[in-house]
Formats: sequence, C-alpha cells, structure tokens
Amino acid sequence: MSGQANVRPAMGGSQDLFYSAATTKGMPTMVRGENIYVYDDTDRQYIDVVSGAMTASLGQGNRRVLQAMYDQGVKHTFSYVRTTRHLPNLALTEKIASLAGPGFERVHLSSGGSEAVEQGIKFLRQYAYAKGLKQKTKVITLMPSYHGGTLATIGWTGDEDAAAVWGPMAIFGDKIPAPLTYRPPFGNTAEEGARGTAAALEAKILELGPENVLAFMMEPVGGQSTGANVPHRSFFTEVRNICSKYGVYLVFDEIVSACRTGSFLAAHHYPDCKPDIVITAKGLGAAYTPIGAVLAPASMVDELASLTGFNLSHTYNANPITCAGAFAVLSEMTDRNLISNAGPLGDLLRTRLNEIKELSPIVGDVRGHGLMMAIEYVRNKETKEVFSGDLFASDRIRQIGVDNGLLLYSRRQNGGRYGEWSVVCPPLIITADQIEELVNRLKKTLSTYVDELTRSGVL
Amino acid sequence: MSGQANVRPAMGGSQDLFYSAATTKGMPTMVRGENIYVYDDTDRQYIDVVSGAMTASLGQGNRRVLQAMYDQGVKHTFSYVRTTRHLPNLALTEKIASLAGPGFERVHLSSGGSEAVEQGIKFLRQYAYAKGLKQKTKVITLMPSYHGGTLATIGWTGDEDAAAVWGPMAIFGDKIPAPLTYRPPFGNTAEEGARGTAAALEAKILELGPENVLAFMMEPVGGQSTGANVPHRSFFTEVRNICSKYGVYLVFDEIVSACRTGSFLAAHHYPDCKPDIVITAKGLGAAYTPIGAVLAPASMVDELASLTGFNLSHTYNANPITCAGAFAVLSEMTDRNLISNAGPLGDLLRTRLNEIKELSPIVGDVRGHGLMMAIEYVRNKETKEVFSGDLFASDRIRQIGVDNGLLLYSRRQNGGRYGEWSVVCPPLIITADQIEELVNRLKKTLSTYVDELTRSGVL
Repeated sequence: MSGQANVRPAMGGSQDLFYSAATTKGMPTMVRGENIYVYDDTDRQYIDVVSGAMTASLGQGNRRVLQAMYDQGVKHTFSYVRTTRHLPNLALTEKIASLAGPGFERVHLSSGGSEAVEQGIKFLRQYAYAKGLKQKTKVITLMPSYHGGTLATIGWTGDEDAAAVWGPMAIFGDKIPAPLTYRPPFGNTAEEGARGTAAALEAKILELGPENVLAFMMEPVGGQSTGANVPHRSFFTEVRNICSKYGVYLVFDEIVSACRTGSFLAAHHYPDCKPDIVITAKGLGAAYTPIGAVLAPASMVDELASLTGFNLSHTYNANPITCAGAFAVLSEMTDRNLISNAGPLGDLLRTRLNEIKELSPIVGDVRGHGLMMAIEYVRNKETKEVFSGDLFASDRIRQIGVDNGLLLYSRRQNGGRYGEWSVVCPPLIITADQIEELVNRLKKTLSTYVDELTRSGVL
Repeated sequence: MSGQANVRPAMGGSQDLFYSAATTKGMPTMVRGENIYVYDDTDRQYIDVVSGAMTASLGQGNRRVLQAMYDQGVKHTFSYVRTTRHLPNLALTEKIASLAGPGFERVHLSSGGSEAVEQGIKFLRQYAYAKGLKQKTKVITLMPSYHGGTLATIGWTGDEDAAAVWGPMAIFGDKIPAPLTYRPPFGNTAEEGARGTAAALEAKILELGPENVLAFMMEPVGGQSTGANVPHRSFFTEVRNICSKYGVYLVFDEIVSACRTGSFLAAHHYPDCKPDIVITAKGLGAAYTPIGAVLAPASMVDELASLTGFNLSHTYNANPITCAGAFAVLSEMTDRNLISNAGPLGDLLRTRLNEIKELSPIVGDVRGHGLMMAIEYVRNKETKEVFSGDLFASDRIRQIGVDNGLLLYSRRQNGGRYGEWSVVCPPLIITADQIEELVNRLKKTLSTYVDELTRSGVL
C-alpha cells in the first residue's frame, strides 16, 4: 500500500486526494512513530528530517505533553476567551513571555501560524488606527518568503506565481528582494546583498509614503521558501534603523525559527534589532496541538486595550487543552535544555552537511542556524546553475529518501526560480548519534541520485 | 478574583488583556467543568448556555474523546499531509462523508471555521480557474452574517462596521440583505422577506455579471450575527434555482449548525436545496481539538486533482491527534443519538422559551432550529423597538446571568442595528431536566433585568 498511487474510495479518503497527483508520488502511509522515527504500513523506519512540517520538535509520543492535554481536558475542557478567563491561559502566556524576555510581555494565542500572522498584523493595524494613524495599511515583505496560507497571508507571502490564481481575491503586498546569501540579489557577497536589500526597503517605504506603511515583515531564518536563508548580520541592524526612522513596525515571522536556533527566538541573536512584535507557532505546539502566538510589548497591548481594544478572536484561541499542551511542550524544552542544545547540535549537523557538500557534485550550499538547516541542490557548483524544472530534483531526492528511510519535504515555490533545496530540521530531541545516522542516509540518497543523473546524462 | 477587573501582570496574562475592557466586565475565571456545567474560582456553578462558543457540544471532560487523542498521540503523533498519509485521516473523512451523505464524499480538513471557509472558497476558485472560468472571483453573502475572523472572511462577513478599520486590508464582498424572519428586509412576513432577498440575489448576480460571480455563501441557521435566524423555506428553493441558473456555486456555512438541528447538516432539511459545498467546524471538534472541514462532491475534487489540484495546506491540516479526537466526537454523537435527539430537545427548549416570551415584556422573538436557538430582546414588543446602544442590554443580561449561574455570550455586531439577542445553544448532551433548570435560571435573570429597567425608568 505504501508508496502506491492514492486510492480514491467512494467516500472519504486522504487529504492528498485534493492535491495534484504529481506532488504525491510514492507518498508513504504512516502507522506509528517513536522518538525521531516514523514507521509506514510495511514497517519501514524513517528519520523525520523535517519534523513533520518543521513542527514536531519533541518527536513522536511524548507522554508528558499528551498526559497534560488529557488531564486538562478531564478537569476543564473548554471556556471561550470572550466570556471567561482560565488558568492554563495564564500559565502559558507567563511561560512564553519569560522565555521571550523584555519587550514581549504580552501573548496573543491562536491556532496556527497563518492565524498568528493575521492576528499580529491586524493587532498592529488596530493599534495604528486607534492612535490616529489611519492610513497605515501596507505591509512590505521579502521575495521569496512564506507567511501562510490564508488569502491575506498569501498576499504577504513572496511567491511570484500566486497572483495568477489568487490575485483578484487577495491584496498583494509590496515586495523587496530577499537578502539571499547564496544568490545575493545585489552585488556578489551576502553582505552586499543585505545592504542592497536594506536600501531597497528604504526606497520602497519612500515610494509608498511612510504614512501608508504599517509594517515590514521578515523571517530571521527562512523556512521552506528560501531554504533556511540567514540574512547577513548587517541586514538586521539596517532594517531596524530604517523601520524606526520611518515609523514602520518591524515584524519577525518566527513561526519556524523559534526554539530552533539555540535560543528561544532567533531575534535574541541580534541585540541591536529588536522587532516590534514576533509571530511564532510551530515549536510551541510541537505537532501535539495547533497553536500560534503573537508576542508584543505590554506597553502597546495595554494602551490599545484602553483605546479600542483588539477585539478579534477565533473560537479556539487560547483554549485550555491547547494551552496545557503547549505549556508542557515548553516545559520539556526548558527542562531538557533542548533549546540551548540546538546550538551545538546544529554545529555538528552543519559540519556533516558541509562534508557532504565537499564530496557531492550537486550540493551547492549548506546554510541555516542551529537545527534549522538546508542544503541547496545545483546542476553546476561553479555556476550555481539550477536543475531544469522537469527534473524536479528536490522531489526526486525526496522519493529516493523514502527508499533510504528518510522523510524529506520538497516544494518548488516560485517555480524553482530561486533554487531548490531540502530543509534539514529534525526534532530537537535528536542526539549526536542520530545526526550521524541521518547524514549517512542522506549521503546514500544523494549518491543514488547522482548515479541516476549520471546514467541519464544530466551530469 | 472572579468577576473583578482584569489584572495586568508584568508578564503574560489572560487573552482578554487584548480586548476592550468594556467588553470583559464581570468575566469569571473558570477552573473546572463537568457535563454541561463549568465552575469558577469561587466554586460557583454555571450552565454553559452557549457551549463555550457554540462548540462544546459534548460538554466538559469526555473521557472517550480525550483517551482517543492520548492514544493516537502515543501511537503516532504527527505526519504532515503533504508528505505522508495516515490512518486517522482516512477513518475521519469516511465517518464525516457517511454522515453527510451523497454529494459530500470528499472532506478537506483544517484547524477551525475561518480556515475552513477560506479553504472552501479557495477550492471553488481553484476549480473554476482550472476549468477556464478565470473571471470568477466574487463572493456574495448576507448582511448581517458571520463567516470568520481572518481578513478574507471578515470581507465576506456581513458587518457594516468592519470596513472602517479593515477596509483597506481586506476585499469586501458584495452583500444582500439577510432574510431575517423577525425583521423582514422586504414586505411584512418571513416569506415576503425571503422572496425579496432571493430577488436581490438574482439582481446582484446580474449586476456583477454571472461570469464574475464565484459563489453565494449563507448560513442555513444563523449564528451570533443574526441570533439563530432560519430563513423561510422558500428562500432555500429559490436560492438553489438562482445559483444553478447562473452557474454560481452555493455554499452553506454550517460551522455552527452542523450536528445541532436534529440532523448532521441543516442542509438535510432542504432536499430541494443541495449546496455545492458545505463548510463546518465547531461540532466536529466539540472544543476538544481545533478542526474545520470542507465537504465537497467526489466528482469536483477528483476532477480538480487531475487538473491543477488544490495544493494549499496548513501545517495542522488533518493531523493525527485532531483526526482521532474528531472521530471520537462523532462516534459519541452517533452512538448516543445526540444529533437526532437535538430535534425533540430543541422542541422542548423552544416551548419553554416561548413561555418566557409570553410572560416577559422584553422578549420579542424566539427562533432557531433544534439546539441552535436564540431569544431577541426589545424595548417594545409591539413596535419591535430595540434598546438604545448605551444600555447594551444583551451584555447586561450576560452579567446578571453570571450571578444566576448562566454562562451567556453577547456581541453587538453591526452596532446592534439588526437587534440584540442571546443565543441558546447548550451542549447536545443536555437532558430535559437540565433544560428546565437552564430555563428557570434564564427566567430569573430576565426578570431581574426587567426590574432594573423598570426602576431606572427605561420600561
């Protein structure tokens, strides 16, 4: 059954029945999981290289988290946050705020990354509106980038192909080139690219009129859309200065990066670039429960509450079971030092991936921060030439990975125009030995693909 | 602590710190729950009249659901639906499809109502686009109505006040008057109102051009925004004919109504009005886990998969723990006949609420379907005059309800221009005796408010 074409039953069926069949080739059916491993219906073992969807940071089957959710549900399943308060909400927000530190005292909870991005931007809009800055509606983001799958977040996401289908139904924000380090949009180095992009941000703000620009939103470590791109340090400093100069709110989208870079927030690595608000999601729930969060300063939240308030909510915002689950997730992370361990484990992973890069003719770049890494594939390492689209190299590597017990993820956002990669962001509970195991399977997978390319004359 | 103004701690705090303080007066802090009751930190017992947020249909602490989520998490916590298939997804979609019946064979899962509405409309857009109907982007909805809290769903929601703050950031859809039965927008009766509204739909489609209109979306039983308005039966027949005539997709937003009207879908009561797709959410997760669903015919889904596919997804779509939880929720509903019992229990509730209406000078209307009811408050039953906005009558009733052990919910959408009400949609596990208990507490609450209004000279 695993790896076969999807069956279309008369009723029901798997979520991927909605997707293009071309994107689901060889998709395995998983039946159980343990630690960093998942097992399909033929009992093949896979290392979960992508933590599900960069989410399952505690791996599979964490009893402490599951028990916390069960116990909370037995005691007090649900109260709506528009009519009641409850204790798990208080415990979780205090925990998150203490990890996030000064400037992020208040926490608004939702049910995933897209909702959290929307709530964060809407919070800023409501704040600006209440303060009389009613023209501020424009959001500037990077091309490429990813900020979510709702129509508004599709409009903020940097994907050149999205406008064709969704254009008339979404408001597409203004984009500036992302400061890609491997393929700098300006100059020849990561730093030149970063300085060019910062200048482009300033030019865009001036073009739009600072009084119309609400926010600049960026991922401090990219996710799937840039393959863990980490902008040159100068970018952070300049961007903070530019946003402050023009009264534009700086938003860090840390949906993926939180908990993964060796500190709770990637923002913590840049003391001279404190964002006005931070959005996060995946690491908080670790795949046990859908959650997202907006972290904001008490000064802004409390001032807004005394004006109009920010009165939007979803049914499941800050629901007791999710709050209890996320509190247990973060307690596991802090009690077991998983956040700080992501630093040295990430260094080991980077070293090993760089060794692969040295040996493999198709690995052009290794990048990332902590346990949020990626390897970029190229047809020619000298020229950085990308593979042709019909090969869909990263997806072929995903399929070969299946044979070698690796669960990879591929997606050609922007039609692959910015390159192709696999993100390598295993669960934070991974050990040094398991990293070696992952790397060995990856080596074998890539070398099989190189053989295949050589036989077919592509290389 | 309960009922006091919210404390603003240095770090963290409750979700309602973000809201306007005016909307959170006397909000209790809940600490435990059992059956249809929740208890605050002074051990006061409340009947959950609103099922949390029209969600907690199984009440508090259902062990079967919680155990199913725990067991699934232990066995297999997470796999991403873009890279894997898994069994709980298959089990849940088969269950939902079998309850929904012919025409709704395929089920797309998400993490709540807003996401589901977005995915449903986007699915239709992608389908129309793939079939070459690329101009179809416009969505017509009712004023008033509620379809969600993301920017796109705010644009489809019928709320005249939303455009001021969100206008420049959302695309506001076209609206026609809702066929309110108590305050018909056309003529003097519910039927005249319905026929007028149907004519308005046809006129709007012609005005926009049928080739530009993607969908007409409506709630077959209203939620908070109309206070459980049930359009006259003729509306359903006419709307189906009009949509078919002009090639416009008919969407039922059953986020609230599914499971509550005595049948799985409210649509099942209207055999001559089968919607093209149905959106649902709240009842599926029953407050145990965030979930939403798009129900669509296999013919459309399978055809689209063979064209472009519908390739949008969120991290937590169809995640194993949520699927296992929702499967247990629906199993509880079917095994205990909770869906079918909502019919006769709703009749009892309606009878008792009508008795209150006869006696109370401020209850102008009782309406709804099954266990999705509402009572509308007026200053004058003859003229249907509404209370002035500064009284915020429904919120004052909510506050008095707290003293009487009732958890009510109030919101003046559209600034109260269409009236004010309390929705009465208790958990589906409520018994006949508990309905009497609820009604007695409500009687006492309303009579206290009438005394207050009389003393202050309003009545």
